[in-house]
This record gives sequence, C-alpha cells and structure tokens, in this order.
Amino acid sequence: MSLISDAGSVVSKVTGAGDDTGDRTFDDANRDLSLDERAALIDLYLRVRRETESLTDPLTAEDMQLQSMPDASPSKWHLAHTSWFFETFILRDMLSGYRVFDRDFHPIFNSYYNSLGQPFPRPNRGLLSRPTIEQVFSYRAHVDRHIERWLTEEDINTAQAELLELGIHHEQQHQELLLTDIKHAFSLNPALPAYREDLDDAGENEDGDTPLQWLQVPEDHYTLGSDGESFSFDNERPSHQRFQPAFRIASRLITNGEFLEFLRDGGYREPRLWLSDGWSQIQQSGKQGIQSAPLYWREIDGEWFQFTLAGLQPLDLNAPVCHVSFYEADAYASWAGQRLPTEFEWEIAAWLHCKSDALDDANLLENRHFQPVAEYESGGRDLQLLGNLWQWTSSAYSPYPGYRASSDAVGEYNGKFMCNQMVLRGGSCVTPRSHIRISYRNFFYPHQAWQFTGIRLAGDVQ
Amino acid sequence: MSLISDAGSVVSKVTGAGDDTGDRTFDDANRDLSLDERAALIDLYLRVRRETESLTDPLTAEDMQLQSMPDASPSKWHLAHTSWFFETFILRDMLSGYRVFDRDFHPIFNSYYNSLGQPFPRPNRGLLSRPTIEQVFSYRAHVDRHIERWLTEEDINTAQAELLELGIHHEQQHQELLLTDIKHAFSLNPALPAYREDLDDAGENEDGDTPLQWLQVPEDHYTLGSDGESFSFDNERPSHQRFQPAFRIASRLITNGEFLEFLRDGGYREPRLWLSDGWSQIQQSGKQGIQSAPLYWREIDGEWFQFTLAGLQPLDLNAPVCHVSFYEADAYASWAGQRLPTEFEWEIAAWLHCKSDALDDANLLENRHFQPVAEYESGGRDLQLLGNLWQWTSSAYSPYPGYRASSDAVGEYNGKFMCNQMVLRGGSCVTPRSHIRISYRNFFYPHQAWQFTGIRLAGDVQ
Amino acid sequence: MSLISDAGSVVSKVTGAGDDTGDRTFDDANRDLSLDERAALIDLYLRVRRETESLTDPLTAEDMQLQSMPDASPSKWHLAHTSWFFETFILRDMLSGYRVFDRDFHPIFNSYYNSLGQPFPRPNRGLLSRPTIEQVFSYRAHVDRHIERWLTEEDINTAQAELLELGIHHEQQHQELLLTDIKHAFSLNPALPAYREDLDDAGENEDGDTPLQWLQVPEDHYTLGSDGESFSFDNERPSHQRFQPAFRIASRLITNGEFLEFLRDGGYREPRLWLSDGWSQIQQSGKQGIQSAPLYWREIDGEWFQFTLAGLQPLDLNAPVCHVSFYEADAYASWAGQRLPTEFEWEIAAWLHCKSDALDDANLLENRHFQPVAEYESGGRDLQLLGNLWQWTSSAYSPYPGYRASSDAVGEYNGKFMCNQMVLRGGSCVTPRSHIRISYRNFFYPHQAWQFTGIRLAGDVQ
Amino acid sequence: MSLISDAGSVVSKVTGAGDDTGDRTFDDANRDLSLDERAALIDLYLRVRRETESLTDPLTAEDMQLQSMPDASPSKWHLAHTSWFFETFILRDMLSGYRVFDRDFHPIFNSYYNSLGQPFPRPNRGLLSRPTIEQVFSYRAHVDRHIERWLTEEDINTAQAELLELGIHHEQQHQELLLTDIKHAFSLNPALPAYREDLDDAGENEDGDTPLQWLQVPEDHYTLGSDGESFSFDNERPSHQRFQPAFRIASRLITNGEFLEFLRDGGYREPRLWLSDGWSQIQQSGKQGIQSAPLYWREIDGEWFQFTLAGLQPLDLNAPVCHVSFYEADAYASWAGQRLPTEFEWEIAAWLHCKSDALDDANLLENRHFQPVAEYESGGRDLQLLGNLWQWTSSAYSPYPGYRASSDAVGEYNGKFMCNQMVLRGGSCVTPRSHIRISYRNFFYPHQAWQFTGIRLAGDVQ
Repeated sequence: MSLISDAGSVVSKVTGAGDDTGDRTFDDANRDLSLDERAALIDLYLRVRRETESLTDPLTAEDMQLQSMPDASPSKWHLAHTSWFFETFILRDMLSGYRVFDRDFHPIFNSYYNSLGQPFPRPNRGLLSRPTIEQVFSYRAHVDRHIERWLTEEDINTAQAELLELGIHHEQQHQELLLTDIKHAFSLNPALPAYREDLDDAGENEDGDTPLQWLQVPEDHYTLGSDGESFSFDNERPSHQRFQPAFRIASRLITNGEFLEFLRDGGYREPRLWLSDGWSQIQQSGKQGIQSAPLYWREIDGEWFQFTLAGLQPLDLNAPVCHVSFYEADAYASWAGQRLPTEFEWEIAAWLHCKSDALDDANLLENRHFQPVAEYESGGRDLQLLGNLWQWTSSAYSPYPGYRASSDAVGEYNGKFMCNQMVLRGGSCVTPRSHIRISYRNFFYPHQAWQFTGIRLAGDVQ
Repeated sequence: MSLISDAGSVVSKVTGAGDDTGDRTFDDANRDLSLDERAALIDLYLRVRRETESLTDPLTAEDMQLQSMPDASPSKWHLAHTSWFFETFILRDMLSGYRVFDRDFHPIFNSYYNSLGQPFPRPNRGLLSRPTIEQVFSYRAHVDRHIERWLTEEDINTAQAELLELGIHHEQQHQELLLTDIKHAFSLNPALPAYREDLDDAGENEDGDTPLQWLQVPEDHYTLGSDGESFSFDNERPSHQRFQPAFRIASRLITNGEFLEFLRDGGYREPRLWLSDGWSQIQQSGKQGIQSAPLYWREIDGEWFQFTLAGLQPLDLNAPVCHVSFYEADAYASWAGQRLPTEFEWEIAAWLHCKSDALDDANLLENRHFQPVAEYESGGRDLQLLGNLWQWTSSAYSPYPGYRASSDAVGEYNGKFMCNQMVLRGGSCVTPRSHIRISYRNFFYPHQAWQFTGIRLAGDVQ
Repeated sequence: MSLISDAGSVVSKVTGAGDDTGDRTFDDANRDLSLDERAALIDLYLRVRRETESLTDPLTAEDMQLQSMPDASPSKWHLAHTSWFFETFILRDMLSGYRVFDRDFHPIFNSYYNSLGQPFPRPNRGLLSRPTIEQVFSYRAHVDRHIERWLTEEDINTAQAELLELGIHHEQQHQELLLTDIKHAFSLNPALPAYREDLDDAGENEDGDTPLQWLQVPEDHYTLGSDGESFSFDNERPSHQRFQPAFRIASRLITNGEFLEFLRDGGYREPRLWLSDGWSQIQQSGKQGIQSAPLYWREIDGEWFQFTLAGLQPLDLNAPVCHVSFYEADAYASWAGQRLPTEFEWEIAAWLHCKSDALDDANLLENRHFQPVAEYESGGRDLQLLGNLWQWTSSAYSPYPGYRASSDAVGEYNGKFMCNQMVLRGGSCVTPRSHIRISYRNFFYPHQAWQFTGIRLAGDVQ
Repeated sequence: MSLISDAGSVVSKVTGAGDDTGDRTFDDANRDLSLDERAALIDLYLRVRRETESLTDPLTAEDMQLQSMPDASPSKWHLAHTSWFFETFILRDMLSGYRVFDRDFHPIFNSYYNSLGQPFPRPNRGLLSRPTIEQVFSYRAHVDRHIERWLTEEDINTAQAELLELGIHHEQQHQELLLTDIKHAFSLNPALPAYREDLDDAGENEDGDTPLQWLQVPEDHYTLGSDGESFSFDNERPSHQRFQPAFRIASRLITNGEFLEFLRDGGYREPRLWLSDGWSQIQQSGKQGIQSAPLYWREIDGEWFQFTLAGLQPLDLNAPVCHVSFYEADAYASWAGQRLPTEFEWEIAAWLHCKSDALDDANLLENRHFQPVAEYESGGRDLQLLGNLWQWTSSAYSPYPGYRASSDAVGEYNGKFMCNQMVLRGGSCVTPRSHIRISYRNFFYPHQAWQFTGIRLAGDVQ
C-alpha cells in the first residue's frame, strides 16, 4: 500500500522499503546505509527533535514539572525519556566510546523496560525537580550531538537504522502525549490557563453539521496490517488475511451537538445503555458522585463550554465530540441503535476510502489547531478517518496472528500491553503527520478519556 | 454438529431443534409445545433443581451464608437468585394469577438486571441472614410448584420454552459457582474444612504424566459459533465464518509438575514473562507482598499442597494445574516459549478432535471428583478439551459479528460484560454435563483465579 | 465509694475489697478464697454466662454468622471468644490436667493478644462458618464445666479470682457488643428485621421533653478513678487527685427533637461547626456523598424514623438522640454554643449527683428496652448519668497518672488502645447492670457511631 | 515569665506586653499604636518576610513546585499562602482602598478556612504551575508594600496589631514547613539532592554521648499555659492551674545510637511494644511491607545513613534520633521501660530548668544546621528542651480549660484540629528563634514523621 508513503518516505527509503522484495520482513536486508541515506536520517531525526522542543515553547519550568495523574507524565520527563531511549538503545550499544550523560538518569527516565532494571515509580515522575529543565535540555543536546556523530562516523546497517526509526516514531508518540498531558494538568488549575492563546482557528462553521451517511462495505477477504514496506510498529505486523462480513460505517465522527442530545436524553443515567464496567466507572468517577459529561465539558449558567489547549471555549456543536472514554463511546452507540466498528472494519474502510493524499487534508499536529474541527477544508472527502480524533473501535488490543515481539529489551515496547485495552485508529489533531498511517494501532484502557478520542459509528448489513 | 446433542437432547427437541429447518433462528418457529415436550421439560427442570439442592447437602446454614469476596456469593443467595430468575422472567409474566412469593425478595435476589430496578449491592450479599435458609427452600418449592403448573396448564410456545431453557442453564451456571464460591470461602478458614471428605478419587496415576504432543491444524475457513439448533447462549451466536491460519495446539493441559518448574525457575519474579497488568497484579495481591504460587497452593515444610473441596491434599504433579489466572497462564506460556490459543483455535480443535461421545468420558460435575484429574479412563483420547478445567484463551470477550442481545431485560444476561474479560472454553470438573458444549463461551477477568481454570498451550505454524 | 457496691458486691467481697486497707492495690492481698466465696463466684459466673446465651435466643445460626464491618464481630464469635478468654487465661494455666477443647480455636478466637500468637484477621471473622454454632455452644459448656471444677477443686487465691472477675466483666462487655453488632448487621438488610418484636416499651411520653437545666460544680480538688476496692479495669486506676475549675453540666441528654433542629438548621452543611477530621469524615461516609443524619435515622416521605432492635420505629422526639459519633456530638455542642464535658467533669458530676441506688432506676440491659428512653420512671432524678447512652466526653483516652498495665498477656487488654480514641462514660441501655460504675471508662474512635452513644453538654463558669 | 521575652521583644512591646498589667488578656488594651511601635513592627515584619524568601534561595522554580504528599505543600504555595493570610485578614478589611492582587488567588491560597469559601483541594496544590514563581514573588512584594502603607498611614490599635503579629508567627510556621516539605520531596528523588551542601557542621563529637540523667520534679500545683503577656497562639491560653504528681524527666533526647539498639533488638518486630494503631501503621507503611527504621534512615551495605537537608550523611550515633512518629517514640519508651512525658510535665521541666538565655544556645533555624546536633556548645546545660527537635508528648491535643477560639475566620486557626493529634513541645532546628517559647503547643498526627521530631523519656516517681 502506497497511501502514506509520502509521509514516511525518507524513512522507508533509508530502511530499504521501496525495494521490490514483495515480502520484506523486519529482520532481513541487513545491508549498510549509503551516505545519502545517512544524511536523510540526520535531517529527519533533527527535525523531529526540534519539533518536540518547540512544543514546550509556551511552557514554564514549573509547567513542565506537572504530573496530574499516574497516567500522565511531566513535559520534562517526556523530553528526557525520549532522549534516554536513543541513548539506551542506540548510543550505549552502537557508538564506540560513548559515555552516558548521567548514570543517575537511567532508572528515572526508563519508562517500563523491566529488563533494563527497576524503573522509577510512574506516579512519582512529577517529584523529580532535579534534573532541572536546563539539564534535560543539555541531555537532549548531548544525545543529539552523539546521534549525529554515530550517523556520520560509524558503519550502520539497515537493522540499526530501523532502531533509530523506532526511536523517532517513539519521540513522535511523546509529542502527542506531552500535549494531552499538559492539557489535563491545566484543566485542574482553577484558572484554566491556555497552553497557547494563538492557536489556529478552524473558522466559522455556519452551515451546521454535515448529515451523517452510511458507507456500505461488502463481505470479502481483506489483507490487513502492515507488510513492513515502510515503517510500522511490531503490533501492526504481520499483514494477514481476514474474512469480513458486509458492514456499514459512518461517513463522519459524532458531533458535540449529537452527543449533547444523548446527554439531555438522560444517557448518563440509563444503565441499560452501558457496559457493566462502564456503568460502575461513571458512578465512581464523577465530581458529584456520578460522571455526567465528557471529561472537559463544563456547564456554566446553562451554557456548555469545553476546556481546550486555547483555554475555555464555548462548545462548538458541529465539531466532533472529543475526550470520551470507550465506555461513553459504546453507550452513545447503544443509544443511537448502532455499534462501534471493529478495528478491521475501520481499516478496511480506510484502505477503500482514503485518497492517496488523505494526510495532506487531515487535521494533524502541524495544523496547530490542537482541537478537532468540524468542517475541514476538504469538505470531509476523506471521512475524517485520519486526523482530528482517535476513534474508539470495539476491538480489544490483541496480537495479530503470527505476531512476535522482538526478544531484546525493545520487545517490551508493545506486546506486554495486549490485555485490557481497546484499539483506537486514525490519529488526532495532535498526532504528527509523518507518524500516522492506516495500519496504526493505538490502544488505551476503556475508561481513559484524556487523549483526543472520538466516536465513529458502524453497523451490520443484513 | 451432533456432538453434544445427547446432553441437550430433551431441550433441543422441545424447542424445535432437530427440525430440518436449515437456518432456524432464535426468534422464529413459534409453535405451541406438545404434551410430550411439556412432560420432558418438567422432568428436566426438576432434575436440575434437585441437583442444585443436593450440592448443598454437606453445608450448614452458616456455610450457606458465607461470602468471602465481592466476586463470590453465598450458597443461599445462589439458591434464591436462580429461583428469582424463573419467577421474574417466567411466572410473573406468563402464569396467570401468579403472586410473587415475597415482594422483598425482588431487589435482593436480582443479580445485575438494572432494568428491573436497583439490585442489592453485590458485596453485601453475605449480610442477608434473613430470609433464612428455610425460607429460601420454601421459595424454591413455591417456584417449582408454579413452574410445574405453568408447564401443565398454560399454552406455551417455543419462544417461551426457550426462556425456561435459559433459566435451566442459568441454574446450572450457578451450580458451578456455588461450588467455586464455597471452596473460596472454606480456603480462608484456617481449619481448611472439606466440603466433602468422600469425593471420588481419580485413582493413582503411577505412570507419570503423558507427554505433551502438538496437533497441527491447517489454514482454512471454518464456521464457528452456534447455529442455534440446540440450546446456546446469545453470545455463541450467530454462527459465522472465520479465516484461520495454520496453528498447532497442545494435546493436554499443563500439569502441576510442569507449573512447579516454572515457579522454581523464578517465573513469578521475572517481569519479562508477564503482561504489564499481570505483573502489577501479582505484586499487589500476594500475602507477603507478592503472589508466588497458584491460588490454593500451600507450601508446608518444603512440600507443596493444594486446597481442594476434599480439604488439603498433597499436590498431584501429574494432574492439571488449576486455579491460575489468565496472567499466570499467559506468563507460563511465555516461559515455555509458546502462547495460549485463541478461542477460535480452541473451538476448531474441539470440532476436529472431540469424539461424538466426548462428554461421556469428560471429568464433569456428575463425576463427583470436583477436582481435575490427570489420567482419565479414556486415556486422554479427547485431549482434555471438555471437562476438567476451563481453559484460558487469548481472546478478549467480544461480540461475534452480527451479535444482537435481546431487547428486554434478559438482554443484560451476557452482552454488557463484553469488555475487559477473557474467554475460557471447555467446562470444568464442576460443570454439569448437560450444560457444556463446544461453542460455549465462558468469561472472567484476567486476574480471577477462583474458578477451575487451567492452561492449554498453542503455537503458530510457520 | 459505695454507690455501686451492690452491683459488684459478690465480687468485691470475694476479692477482698471491703478490707480496711486504705491503699489496697490490684496485686496484694493474696490469700486463699473461702468456700462461700467460691460458691458465690460460681453463681455469678454462671449467671453471666447464661445471660450471654439468652441474648442469642432470637437469632438463627445465620444471624450469628454475620459480620457487617471490620469493627463488628459475629454473635458466634462473641460466644466463642469470651470462652477462649476463660480457657486461655485461667484453665490452661491453673486447672491441672486441663486439655483445650480444640487447638484450632486458639488463633481464631484470640481477638488481639499479639503476645499469644498472630490473631486471625479481624475483618474475616464473618468467614468462619466452622466451627458451627453447635460446636461453639459445646465449647461454652466445656469451658463452663471446667471453670466450675476449677472453682471447686483447686486452691484459688484472690489474685486468681480477680482474673476470673476480669473474664466475667469481659463477657459482659461482649454482651453489649453482641447487641450493637447484630443491630448494625440487621440495619443493612433492606427488610430491616427486628431482633425482637416484643421489647419492653418505655411507655408514652406525653409531657414533652424535660427542660434542660444546668448544674453548677465549684472549683476544687477531686479524687478521681477507682481505688480498687471493688472491681475495676486497669484503665480506671490508680485513683488520683485533679484540680478542676468550676464548670456547669447539663441535667439530661440531648433529645432527638433537639438534634433534629440542628439538622434542619443545616448543621451537617456548615463546616465551621465541625472538627476538621469530622468534616472530612461526614463528607466521605454518606450514602449520597455526604452524611446528613445519625447512623440509623431514615427519612421516608418527609417523616423521620429510626432503626431499632425492634425494627423501624417513628422517631421519638423526646427520647435521647443515639448512635451519634463524637464528631456529631461535638458539632452539635458547637451549634448549641456549648461544649462536651471532660471525662473528669462527668465523673465529678456523677459522684456528686448519683444517688446510691442510681443503678436501680437506670435504663440498662436488664430492662430489655434496648433503646434509650425519654422519661424513665425515676423522673430523671439521676440526670440520666448512668444507663440509656454512653456519653461522649471531650477527653482523649489516655493513661491516668501512675497507670501501669500488667506485664503478662492480659496487659494488652486496655493500654495499647490509649491513642486516637475518646472516652465515653455512663453505660447504655444494653450495658449489664452489674458491669457499669461511675469510674468506668469506655473508649471508641471519634467517627464510630454504632454503639449506643449520646450527647450531654457542659460549659465553663466564668 | 520573662524567659523568652527577648525573642519576642519587639512584638510584645508593640502589643502592650511589658505593661505591668498583671492580668493582661488578649482582648483588652485596645489603644492606638505609637509611631515607634509602628516602625518596630515594620522592621519585624520585613525581617521575617525576607527570611522566608532567603530560605528559597537554593531552590529552582521546579523545586518550589513539588508536593510529595498531601500533608506537604509546594514551597511556592507556602510563599503565596502566607501572603494571602496578610491580604485576607488585614489588607482587605483594614486598608482603605486596597485592591486584591488577583481574585483567582483567593481560593487556591486559602489553606483550610472554610468560612472564607471552599479551599482548593490540598492534595492538588502541586498542580498549580500557574501562578508562576515570578508572579508569587510579585504578590509578596505587593502585599509587603501595602502592609507597610497600612502601618504607616492608617490608625492601628493593639487588637489590629495583634492580627499582624499572628500573621508574622504564621509566616514563621511556614518557614519551618517549607524546609520539612522540601526535605520530604527531595528524599523521594533517587539522586537524593542536597538542599544546601554548605550547611554549618556542628563539629565532631568525639566524646561519645552524654549519659542520660533523670531530673526529679516534686508533686505540686503549677500554673501552665500562656498568660498572654507576650505573643501566644490561642491554644496556649488561658494560663491555668494543674495539680501534678511527682515525676522524673530525662536530661536529654534519645540518640541515634540508642535508637539503633532498639532496632537491633527487634523493636520493630515486637507487637507488645507498640500501641495498637502504631502496630497496624508500621505494618502497612513500609517499603517492603513493614516499616523497620525511622523515615530517612537508609541501610547501605550494612552501614546506616540518614538523608538530611545536606544530602545523605553517615548516621551520627551521638546526635538525637529524628523523624520518628509518635508511635515509634512510644514504642521506644516501652522498650526502655519508661514512658513519654505529658505536655504538662515537659512544660514544668522547662520552666524549672531553662535559663533565661536558653534560646541563645538552642539549635534553631538561624544556626543553619538544619539538623539536630549532639553536643551543642552549651554543653547541654538547657537539657535540649528548646530547639533541636520537637519532642513528642503523651498528651492528646485538647483545649485548655476555658479555651475559646475567636469567633471570626481566624478562629479556624487552631481549634478545629483538637482531635486525633498529639502535642509536641520545644521547637526544632528549623524553628525560627523568635517563634518558639516554652508554652508553645505544636501538634501532629501520631503517624507523621516528616517534621523534625524526637524522643524525650519520662517516668513516675513512687
């Protein structure tokens, strides 16, 4: 599939994708990199690293210290952990004579790689005032200098280059988390500070919402997952065949206005609409004993507002509803007499309906909206499948047939989370453009709502 | 498939299964029952109800009051709740002139049907000393009399008979739970009382364990799930096609001896073997800070024992390991370099390898072992697929394609639990023989181990 | 002080009280008992043991199994634990040839004597269906037979007799707890069962409540605590001098009607009335997120009711308010512009105002009201100081000057609880008459309300 | 009592103390301040404010953001809250034309004054990255300017001046908390950062520890508490008479070496030494399931170290043991066959034994040790009663006879905490010299150990 080849082109070229080896796998093709490939990699690496840092421009040292819940991490920690990843998996093993920046950093910026030693307890990341933000930026500069040196001076084969790619995509994941985590932290400050006042507005949306349409997809065998031609995480592989019965899928995401109808119809008070665990959860998690609206909604004097990275804003009824948990998405679908799509249905629809330049039009990190938008310039021609919001699917996060995690420490990257979580697809308004692809599988616990998550409906075809 | 037609024959005949209607569905065929069918149903109903009561013979009134954790219920509550089910879903609606036995029973014996009113809080079931056990037995007798009257005096169509069938299978589920729950409660009594001293012994097992073999299953399309010809729960339907890559599956369950090797090899202390949530769980749930053995194992002076319904017994190294959580099963599989089967792989293996009389040989409730056995008389010819132990699969409990819960209160029976739980297959040594079938999907949370749960391995075929 | 000499007369005579040794202490006077003294002790012992058993007459085996919270214990456990006390502290050490009834009983019926081995976890007492209630009654009979034999056949000195006395008073404490614990358990059964329907009614109270008057007590030195002439717990000793400024104390307890005014005036919503910990506690403990009435009050269609051992009853506005926590008592006092008395003020008032036959008129266990009463026959002449309700004082439970716990296991009886608890005085409607005395110090945590606890006000005198 | 008049001289002069009015109380003497008094107050105010700020010199903005547990607060919050106190209780009411610095600050820097509105949830103070530290310093400057203006331009009577005094002492309390809180936060950073490397060393202590001696104090009537001649908190008043039996009290604090003996003798594993609640607490709070040493002790390769504000240091065996909970102090006393003093015994000993210049020699904040010292220059002549460590007493924190909280918002300052806490006396190495006095009553929960708390023994005299 060449759909997103543009976004990932440098990387895929470097790592040998584009060869006409029909069944390239992750482990073969272990040739050395050319000079051009090295230069392209340096360029890509530095661009991504700079982007991360630019996201912290509006933040003070104190902001970057905040950890508002165990699920979230301080910005400073994100900055350091991503550097630790390059240091640990590349520099320590592959750059001759490399000396680690600071031995004390190893446990505290190890996220969850138990095979590398006991990681620092996650809920305490916000307690690490030292190293200071200046030291962390020095750490980043140190790592960057040495990655450049490594890419310049050492022999590098494609397998090694793929580890660097993994590190780059890992950094991009943390760009998104940095924004969702600071949003959560700011939401608990009664002053409701804006991350940035000057975010690009998506413009007025005077025409009301686009009617929701149903796309029919016929029964067939489909090949799903990544074939490994361009970068993918191990959890997207191997590509494999599935038999899929006919189904229908919605042409767009559910809007704030539609979700408000659910709320006003008593959706949060009707147990029959909810999964059993979801019903328990909303009864325990609410501020006054029961949750009754999406995470960042606020009702003030009868008007609905929404906390955003630009501060508190009136609720845009035509924009997609965001920051809903899987439980809320599922309950909404039940109320609407529909269901959520499986991750396979979502992926099939995306392969069938996304244009080759779908990502160009999508609302992603680079658009600097940092909020889902209702009517994108494209007029919705790509169905909001990519960008805007991660879309909850009804699929539990499980290994694909034939999945194997790598046997070294990086093997802890994805596989050990394949339990109790649900798959989300499509990327969001804070996902980097070169990071997302159709086969991408994101995953969160069903009660979590602090990511940019939304609702797309699906249904059976009799 | 006729494999389990014997077990469920009366019911399937009564409900119209066996008709040569190729595509019978749950809602059609709404004809009236014949006199013979009514008589057969009365007989089946009463046999199952008597069996439940006989299981409480060894118990005192105080035993039947015990609730050792929120997941478990008192025996008395099981006795009453199953009666409430018949009263609520059949007698109240379908028997003219029926008067409920006691209005106060309604909320307290409603398990989780929110659409019927707020159920009594589950963790408090053990606090209901009133009604007394005598009153609960009177309740059962009252309900039994009226079910007989209903089956004798009223017009009954097949849809109505299917509700009775559901109630009978529901009662059988609670037979199993009654035993697993009392086992758990007794395990917390330092005297470790036996439920019964006189359980049938499965005999010596002098030959050591049977070598584990791998059965190869080729890639193909398979039709899975229940076609509704005989009784099934809604979560087994509709039958549907799946494409399955080639795989291999173990010829028997993992034994205590094999699991002991895992334990002695440090399996409980090696995070890389564990799912992330599993590692967290065993670090929190142990008696001395970390769990380090299956639920009912006890080490006494260097020897291993196991608490059973017959009291504390030396660990039989050749018997299947039981009362393991999904996390333990998955960690064991990782340690062994294998994986757990998906529920589809399990089901395919069962359709292919179970003989038509597989249930006759299986170790089920009626065998009165109440404990898994190593070498069954059959010489393991049916691979221990049915009976002995529920077998954890790697499949999260999700709806089948095209699944629809019924729209009335019974619709809460299964569907609302389709999140966060894992599928188990095969039945156990405390499952009634006429209750289990190949398409049966049981489900529990991955941390739960108080059911009779075991481990079967599987693997890919390159 | 001879006030309560009647109640404890047998015991005090037996143990040598009444000697004119001015400074008798607990450990001296170690002479042998006479035959008459032995006979009197047998009689007292058996009367108290029978009384305990009679309190369980209305209970089924299932009722006696209930444990509704960690603070409470099953009736069966009370029956067994009190027997364990006699077996452990008397029979095992002092009756030659005694064989314990059942070795397994030792850990499970040890309440909190760590020096005798690890006690069974308190919150799990309700899980001990075995031993059965029949076995526990056999245990009691066994212990009773051997205590009689001991009192008949062995040489016994007064120090040993005092241990028996301690066991008898210990048993009486558990009579009270048995009733308060079963009341709590029944209160959680939605059918609100009555312990007994036929409790003695205190009669109509047509005259309205008695006006509250203030008794003035002048500044002086007072000798407080027990001089050890008759039975007392170690925490009441030694008697000692205190300087007490002048104070005033209320002539009766606060009524339900008065407390209802506090409630209706928003007392539960006004943080300034509450101790900081109390405010936190009522905000966490309520059913709908905030506690707003005493423990057993229920508002039904605008009318107030109260759960009692005779079932749900309309709230008697003239009866004393009961089952309030220390926090509620203190908040009420703040609202009323008063304060609670110290335990010394209470004791001084009692020495000054209780007639020598005060206990005859008091509402105690033997009256079989099992509920505080408004106007007792005495016309309140003893100020409701004894009986009716335990009265919260503002005194934290601390050792008296010169307090020493005994050095053996019995030393754990009282001293180790001298932290975080508040002193209550006076006894209640479920306290045995021969158990209470003016110097008696009861103690509970300030949040606890399941005992029969009430409010008496006090104030400074300028 | 003139003992500590030096420390508080400016204030007491200003507020009229030093008058020879024998019975001055807090509420009378409402005359206007003189110009000299105003000038002295300005000077005192500014000196204390500057001291607070100087304590943050070694801290980064990120350090000042840390909140390591709900009991502790960020340094930034301390800086702001103390300013809020002056703004709220003085400027808003008494400075004409005053405009609050920022309305949003009011709820977030209100600590616990419910009568002033719902305070921001305490455990979330660490989430307030905004206002920034720069804004908080601006807030401080703004408040300081206006306090100066108020003291210069407005009519001020002594009652008003006393409010300012209260604010100054309040600020000094937070100086101490700022240091104990940052110490706790730093202790959770695996790098164990030093607050300051350059703290004054107390010098070698080559002579070993001073032998512990017992001071005898005879039975008598004593007048305790503050007579209000110089500044005191309301909880120290009124001064009142107590009768005190004879007692003995230790001449110095318990040392690390002595406490180590307790530890090595199995003190943490012997339940009979512990209060019941203490035993429960140490079994739940430890890192490996059971606490086994004081809060900041670390055993590394068989050597004992202690985390201090100068980083990790070898344990000085002759220095007083610090950061022990009340439970640990009480268990140590039991092990030593002694007891803790009551707060009255401590106060009597201090009045009798402290020289008039006791504070000059004491180890207090201004000494910049920030750690208790073994042999202070004074040679222990003042018995370490003042300074070094807060000394746990056996007295629960209760109101003195005749105590009355003031009726306005400041009335929440002390009184509402008079439950569940224990009194500590004497001040510590981080208490400002002009803040402490003999009658001072500090109070913490018995499980808390993050303050500089130590052990002094006492005993009865037969």
